[in-house]
Amino acid sequence: MGQDNLSFVLEKAGSVRYEDRPIPPLTSPYDVRVNVRYTGICGSDVHYWTHGAIGSFVVKSPMVLGHESSGVIAGVGDKVSSLKVGDRVAIEPGIPCRRCVRCKEGYYNLCVDMRFAATPPIDGTLAKYYAVPEDFCYKLPESVSLEEGALMEPLAVGVHITRQAQIKQGQSVVVFGAGPVGLLCMAVAKAYGANTIVAVDINEDRLKFATQYAATHSVVSQREPAPDTAARIIKAADLGLGADVAIDASGAEPCIQAGIHVLRTGGSYVQGGMGKSDITFPIGAMGAKELNIKGSFRYNSGDYSTAVGLVTSKRVSVKELITGKVKFTDAESAFQDVKAAKGIKILIEGVQD
Amino acid sequence: MGQDNLSFVLEKAGSVRYEDRPIPPLTSPYDVRVNVRYTGICGSDVHYWTHGAIGSFVVKSPMVLGHESSGVIAGVGDKVSSLKVGDRVAIEPGIPCRRCVRCKEGYYNLCVDMRFAATPPIDGTLAKYYAVPEDFCYKLPESVSLEEGALMEPLAVGVHITRQAQIKQGQSVVVFGAGPVGLLCMAVAKAYGANTIVAVDINEDRLKFATQYAATHSVVSQREPAPDTAARIIKAADLGLGADVAIDASGAEPCIQAGIHVLRTGGSYVQGGMGKSDITFPIGAMGAKELNIKGSFRYNSGDYSTAVGLVTSKRVSVKELITGKVKFTDAESAFQDVKAAKGIKILIEGVQD
Amino acid sequence: MGQDNLSFVLEKAGSVRYEDRPIPPLTSPYDVRVNVRYTGICGSDVHYWTHGAIGSFVVKSPMVLGHESSGVIAGVGDKVSSLKVGDRVAIEPGIPCRRCVRCKEGYYNLCVDMRFAATPPIDGTLAKYYAVPEDFCYKLPESVSLEEGALMEPLAVGVHITRQAQIKQGQSVVVFGAGPVGLLCMAVAKAYGANTIVAVDINEDRLKFATQYAATHSVVSQREPAPDTAARIIKAADLGLGADVAIDASGAEPCIQAGIHVLRTGGSYVQGGMGKSDITFPIGAMGAKELNIKGSFRYNSGDYSTAVGLVTSKRVSVKELITGKVKFTDAESAFQDVKAAKGIKILIEGVQD
Amino acid sequence: MGQDNLSFVLEKAGSVRYEDRPIPPLTSPYDVRVNVRYTGICGSDVHYWTHGAIGSFVVKSPMVLGHESSGVIAGVGDKVSSLKVGDRVAIEPGIPCRRCVRCKEGYYNLCVDMRFAATPPIDGTLAKYYAVPEDFCYKLPESVSLEEGALMEPLAVGVHITRQAQIKQGQSVVVFGAGPVGLLCMAVAKAYGANTIVAVDINEDRLKFATQYAATHSVVSQREPAPDTAARIIKAADLGLGADVAIDASGAEPCIQAGIHVLRTGGSYVQGGMGKSDITFPIGAMGAKELNIKGSFRYNSGDYSTAVGLVTSKRVSVKELITGKVKFTDAESAFQDVKAAKGIKILIEGVQD
Repeated sequence: MGQDNLSFVLEKAGSVRYEDRPIPPLTSPYDVRVNVRYTGICGSDVHYWTHGAIGSFVVKSPMVLGHESSGVIAGVGDKVSSLKVGDRVAIEPGIPCRRCVRCKEGYYNLCVDMRFAATPPIDGTLAKYYAVPEDFCYKLPESVSLEEGALMEPLAVGVHITRQAQIKQGQSVVVFGAGPVGLLCMAVAKAYGANTIVAVDINEDRLKFATQYAATHSVVSQREPAPDTAARIIKAADLGLGADVAIDASGAEPCIQAGIHVLRTGGSYVQGGMGKSDITFPIGAMGAKELNIKGSFRYNSGDYSTAVGLVTSKRVSVKELITGKVKFTDAESAFQDVKAAKGIKILIEGVQD
Repeated sequence: MGQDNLSFVLEKAGSVRYEDRPIPPLTSPYDVRVNVRYTGICGSDVHYWTHGAIGSFVVKSPMVLGHESSGVIAGVGDKVSSLKVGDRVAIEPGIPCRRCVRCKEGYYNLCVDMRFAATPPIDGTLAKYYAVPEDFCYKLPESVSLEEGALMEPLAVGVHITRQAQIKQGQSVVVFGAGPVGLLCMAVAKAYGANTIVAVDINEDRLKFATQYAATHSVVSQREPAPDTAARIIKAADLGLGADVAIDASGAEPCIQAGIHVLRTGGSYVQGGMGKSDITFPIGAMGAKELNIKGSFRYNSGDYSTAVGLVTSKRVSVKELITGKVKFTDAESAFQDVKAAKGIKILIEGVQD
Repeated sequence: MGQDNLSFVLEKAGSVRYEDRPIPPLTSPYDVRVNVRYTGICGSDVHYWTHGAIGSFVVKSPMVLGHESSGVIAGVGDKVSSLKVGDRVAIEPGIPCRRCVRCKEGYYNLCVDMRFAATPPIDGTLAKYYAVPEDFCYKLPESVSLEEGALMEPLAVGVHITRQAQIKQGQSVVVFGAGPVGLLCMAVAKAYGANTIVAVDINEDRLKFATQYAATHSVVSQREPAPDTAARIIKAADLGLGADVAIDASGAEPCIQAGIHVLRTGGSYVQGGMGKSDITFPIGAMGAKELNIKGSFRYNSGDYSTAVGLVTSKRVSVKELITGKVKFTDAESAFQDVKAAKGIKILIEGVQD
Repeated sequence: MGQDNLSFVLEKAGSVRYEDRPIPPLTSPYDVRVNVRYTGICGSDVHYWTHGAIGSFVVKSPMVLGHESSGVIAGVGDKVSSLKVGDRVAIEPGIPCRRCVRCKEGYYNLCVDMRFAATPPIDGTLAKYYAVPEDFCYKLPESVSLEEGALMEPLAVGVHITRQAQIKQGQSVVVFGAGPVGLLCMAVAKAYGANTIVAVDINEDRLKFATQYAATHSVVSQREPAPDTAARIIKAADLGLGADVAIDASGAEPCIQAGIHVLRTGGSYVQGGMGKSDITFPIGAMGAKELNIKGSFRYNSGDYSTAVGLVTSKRVSVKELITGKVKFTDAESAFQDVKAAKGIKILIEGVQD
């Protein structure tokens, strides 16, 4: 196996370089090798780049970055039956152990032995080639481009959050945070039949985009007690006794608080965003309204194929979110743009084989 | 209709008196009149007595106290078919509107037009007679005493909390707070097949009672960071990656925090206790572990009949919790004892007809 | 109260007449009186007309026919708050007792004391006026016509069937029977995100309509062993290991059998159609594939409001199904047309007040 | 690897012999080798022995029989962490592919690439040694014997059936068939809180055993219309409007029919038994009562550990079901006894190493 596998490597916080690494072998007969073509950058990638760690996950040795990728099959193991060389795919970047209780229950996102791309010490997808089991590749139909394929990862995050919310036809949904994941939650909620979708953010440009994209209403977040924000949202979108569902895709304390206050009795709340570990939380309102609150961590069975299906059937459009593309050799500039909150989603082009 | 209906009335915060009120009429042909025989006192009764209000529910005119009652049927409406005079019953004290969306969905505890005994302005059950629709009375079999019947209300609270937790056979459950509701949650969790039941409280006497009653392990709560409490609980009960279920029946901030930290990924948490409206909450741990968190508010369809069934089948015993009985004319002393945290559950005898 | 309430009455099998009956009083302060404007005819109406009975429900005394109606509010009870005179509404025609276990659980369609319009001995809606509780009237927005409003009943049937099937985004659904209810199930399945919707019927014209309306594929049913029909469906729609969901809206034995055989392991089947009481059924395939099979009986909480919402948001269109309208005084001709399977849905105009 | 692995081999229908086969290698580092100690015989084993096939599964080359086994760990792969040589275990005998959609959803029992012991062409467990992944072995606590360990397989079947039935505290359950699986369903239903458990069988001795073991009532099945059997059951056990749950563990047509008729509206039915592929089925009653009907196929995530937990916690006792033990070299006699319906469960002792 040759050495022709140019990779974008994080050495330590703030320090990246390109490295020619060995082409990854197919360690299982069910593995495929993907020539990575497009990779999106996400807040967690940037966080590793700037801080060298997220919580207990610390970059201790050089690690390839990137986990939102699409590509073209460049090699297949002996037992691979669903894919062939040349197929265009979206890559699901976390491979669970398949043996623990959570995996066998269907919650493989909660696997304690998960190997997730660009989560230390597992290398990511910002390389010419990436090897992965065939069942974690999702074939893209002709109508879906490789650029769109790279968006399947954040869309799967949105699908999972929305699934946790168990949205029913005709419900009202308030989404806090109009970044990529929040926007995709709005789009999925719309596809799932939500009639009222309220976008809440501090950034009016984002809100403008959100209402053009998927939201029916928008509310600017401002400094005030959370019950007041909730009251403003209820009034703006005519939510009566409160919203059926609230989704936080911001991780911001005031949003989480307003999300609880904005719900009707028996409503559902999903925590999609990540921010401070500990916040002030309206536990009394939560209990008295008998809310259903769920975390949402990555994605599991069905989320990626649902994501591809939503785009294929044109129920969700992701093209609008792609606001820039850079060459592989300019990868660092993409990280700088995401850090500076420029655009919505920037893609890094891969090295074609 | 006569005037022979001695009632225990709260005039305003701190001020109670006995009053001879009219015997309640049967306003619907489906109503029954119950001669109340035993009434338990709960923290909310005491709170109205001491403060004259709970949150937005304010005692503005004199209100009969009490809502945990059993009694004997003394009169029935024309269309009553399930009960007859002389039947011994437990009374479910909250009557929903039966017409709103929540009622018709099966969540009548979330009805916005609920008429709940001893929640202003609705009179409670501490009277000689109480009128209620027949379907909110639960016939007690011969093997269940009227004293036990008065415990059906807190048991239904425990049944509802435990139902929200969706306990499965063989699971581990940590219950914070070993007061009446916490103890009953432990007993119900045991009946539902939990193999490990950990009681957590600051009071060692209560923990001793808990382990004799239903818990398999006990842990004394102490001043320390919540993750440390969680670690001590996990170690004490050998919970491996964490507990399957955590129930808070204390309302105390350190318990709520430890309840989140003690759970495994994908675990379930139910907020049963009431305390401060806003607390510091480990939202990061909640999200990353993809927890399921639910409020629990009173009880709804099936909870009371399950409560009676659990006692009838001897899967749950409530006798041990009755630590005192006082005459109707000494009702105020029972309130004083509950306020002073004397005993577990004190019953007030009714006025026999 | 006057006598001005012209009604279309079934005296006994085959014998109908018009009768001027008393205007129905508002027996509860929550009742409204509706001036009925449009009424659709359903197979069960025709069955009572031709046979005088359905199963154990026998027409023993003259009964007003009709239960698929829209109208305009003509009077309201003292406590009615959600409607006023002049509002345009769809009428949900079955009023449950609201007190039994099933009602309080949220399954009011299974109430044993249900009073359902035009199910003996309860009078139906083919009258100038009909009285009903306000919470069983659904206000139509301006964009929805009274003609469409009369279709809310069969649409609610389709919504309930589809809800029983728990369709998930991207799934494949096979619907047997392309009559009004089958067609509406296809439309609802599409709105709920089904990607493949196969219509199966013996009538090629109906199939042609189905594919223009909502189905992605159609298969003509023919005399053959059921596994062969299933194999043809799987091949025609490229269903791989089988369909995710099968819905029978035909009641026909060969369809039911093919519906079981067409499913993948773990698939879901809903019995919407009514036909013979006892049929030959592939229980072995059902067990070995661990299928989920559900009956579907009328509709309950949320189905009518979902129906109105689907039409309001234009996710489902019902106009195409209205193939004829007759004057109130020609009602019998509508029954004859439905019996002769002419058109899809014929409406009877009401007597405007 | 030696040749010392005496195995009980089915050559073709009716013809068995002992064969010394190679000791099975550990093909994965997560595999363990078990010295099989006790193996129960099940109807499917006998069916292969007598007919050489079950449906499409045909014995085309010699196959080792047996799949209900316990044993002692005799060897472990390099990465095995949960077990060590000498541990006593129950063996789950079906290994799914872990990669297909059903596996990743948590329904690995529905895996199309399942390798199940003694289902052609996969060899069974009636051998001195059997190799299996560690996560399909369940460690037995000291209090559970290896004989009981061999009963974990049918108990897991009963746990899965009962799980499909979603039994709630206090419900009534009718179980058709009082063979090993039916009896274990009764025991599990009792452990899960069913208050009324009715055993139905044609064999009065079995019914007598059933009521001593776990049933609260018994009804002798007899030739009569199924609604009459249902009416007798309802009367015998005072089931009012019908049973909450019916479980068929007989596969017999009259039982399946009576199972549908015995249920209340909204009740649940599970098909556990296997018999004729096609039967006459009361589809009308099923639909009108809006029943929930499920197949049940083997077991999946959590069922085996629940089975071991139920026996460990003494909520279910399996000892009573063991009515005979034979030496490994007398294995064929055990098959003859099961074929002749002698006793309840006969165990074949393994060859100790």
